[in-house]
Amino acid sequence: MRAIVINGAGGPEVLEWREVPEPTLRPGDVLIEVTASAVNRADILQRMGFYDPPPGESKYPGLECSGVIVETGPDVVGLSVGDRVCALLAGGGYAERVAVPWQQVMPLPEGVSEVEAAGLPEVACTVWSNLFMTARLRRGETLLVHGGASGVGTMAIQLAKAHGARVVATTGSDAKAGRLRELGADEVVNYRTEDFAEKVEADVILDIIGAKYLSRNIKALRTGGRLVVIGLQGGATAELDLRALLTKRASVHGTTLRSRPADEKGVICRGVVQDVWPLVAAGAVRPVVHAELPMAQAAEAHRMLDSGDHIGKILLVR
Amino acid sequence: MRAIVINGAGGPEVLEWREVPEPTLRPGDVLIEVTASAVNRADILQRMGFYDPPPGESKYPGLECSGVIVETGPDVVGLSVGDRVCALLAGGGYAERVAVPWQQVMPLPEGVSEVEAAGLPEVACTVWSNLFMTARLRRGETLLVHGGASGVGTMAIQLAKAHGARVVATTGSDAKAGRLRELGADEVVNYRTEDFAEKVEADVILDIIGAKYLSRNIKALRTGGRLVVIGLQGGATAELDLRALLTKRASVHGTTLRSRPADEKGVICRGVVQDVWPLVAAGAVRPVVHAELPMAQAAEAHRMLDSGDHIGKILLVR
Repeated sequence: MRAIVINGAGGPEVLEWREVPEPTLRPGDVLIEVTASAVNRADILQRMGFYDPPPGESKYPGLECSGVIVETGPDVVGLSVGDRVCALLAGGGYAERVAVPWQQVMPLPEGVSEVEAAGLPEVACTVWSNLFMTARLRRGETLLVHGGASGVGTMAIQLAKAHGARVVATTGSDAKAGRLRELGADEVVNYRTEDFAEKVEADVILDIIGAKYLSRNIKALRTGGRLVVIGLQGGATAELDLRALLTKRASVHGTTLRSRPADEKGVICRGVVQDVWPLVAAGAVRPVVHAELPMAQAAEAHRMLDSGDHIGKILLVR
Repeated sequence: MRAIVINGAGGPEVLEWREVPEPTLRPGDVLIEVTASAVNRADILQRMGFYDPPPGESKYPGLECSGVIVETGPDVVGLSVGDRVCALLAGGGYAERVAVPWQQVMPLPEGVSEVEAAGLPEVACTVWSNLFMTARLRRGETLLVHGGASGVGTMAIQLAKAHGARVVATTGSDAKAGRLRELGADEVVNYRTEDFAEKVEADVILDIIGAKYLSRNIKALRTGGRLVVIGLQGGATAELDLRALLTKRASVHGTTLRSRPADEKGVICRGVVQDVWPLVAAGAVRPVVHAELPMAQAAEAHRMLDSGDHIGKILLVR
């Protein structure tokens, strides 16, 4: 089969669409003939050599896909050859075929195309697990989501609104603010011209920046607030004011999705199918797609994500 | 009535047992004729001028007591004059009488004396709320508790063991280690001679040190671990390694009990009555009392706590 291979750490130019060996199925795996995949920031870190795949996982990038099951290994539960599905992957989505544990496979949600569905697993699983399993966001609470125009950001805005939260989103461009409001954001803060910590009081913060925002995020938390850090675009180490944390009875959570065992991912996928897919079917939560490119043009897709001009997901189609 | 008055911030000598006005009952308050109170580290901070009582609360020290209800204000639910009780206070326990919201009043647990019961509310509410509401400690997990010989430490060891956890406790004295093992600690680490972060892998850490231990606490956390900081004896600000937090999918929680509204304290007290009091009645969790002193000798009790030679609670008896 063909896949996008990373020819040594580097820029987008190291990505090459070429012939590679077929995936091998482990017990519990299904083989998916890929219809589409999508670009995540983690793919760019992996391309640059900063984020190796977990041991034993595919070396090719791609953390999600849609497609059709063409083979099932032993110990697979509830899935059959011919099922049209989407899946959360630990890697290997930029390929013609990918093997994935059955727990990470989900039915296509109603009301979206098979191509659009390729961009839902990562954002739906990331947002749902962090807002509802980790931060326990409740109706009437305020969510602050950084990077509101990202794939995760656009899903977080919609999903939090659908659950009755008030949503404040940050973005670096006034041009994007209107689109974030259309998606449901009650307030949009331009981080280039305003200090969010002066403007926002939040019960939950979903953060992709890390160190650079740590003290301001804690300042912006209300009593009982939960800060969930899922990215470190602004560095990894920063001073933490524990007195503020105690006074506010607040918490700081770090999470990643990719390194979790298949059973934990499975619990998240079941939650997404039960809670998020009906909202997608009802039109309350929509895939936000910035662009669709042929998979062989993954390098161009990476440049597009790097530029930061996108809103929502960039899809890679076979 | 008489109470311990803090005559200006300072050492134990500023504590004076003298005549003061009677407490006034707010709606929802009961008046307790105090049998005994107990010393907490927060009382020492308050005496030194570092920890003022929340607005509107008694200026006298004392965060817990036992005694008998002698008056009930309007809007009190489920309590009557003559009830023998213990209570979680926002202050004012070092006194002949104290007013307290009804939500913070608990029945005496079976199997302990009324004097012993005076030392249970703070430790039971602190440990129960932090281990089970905040950190969600589960059967089979490992708890690391710093300051194992403190009132909170001795309760945490017993309560975590009673819930099927493995318990590691730190202490600064080999002489105390045996007593902590008797209380149920599976392992005791002398922090003066050993680095706990080299020896322990914990799912939950209950910490009273703060800044000085932050990086080592995070190092000692297992994947999915929860660090709960309830004291800052080792400082308030320290560098946080967010990458370690993400990689471990771990969390840092800060909490305090005293500043919570009465309704939240009430939820905790109901949990303690339901979950901890039966364990006390069954003998699985015992009050650990280091000394009982007359309330007028509060200064001596503070010196005793300051010396750090105690194991468990120091009680003040009328």
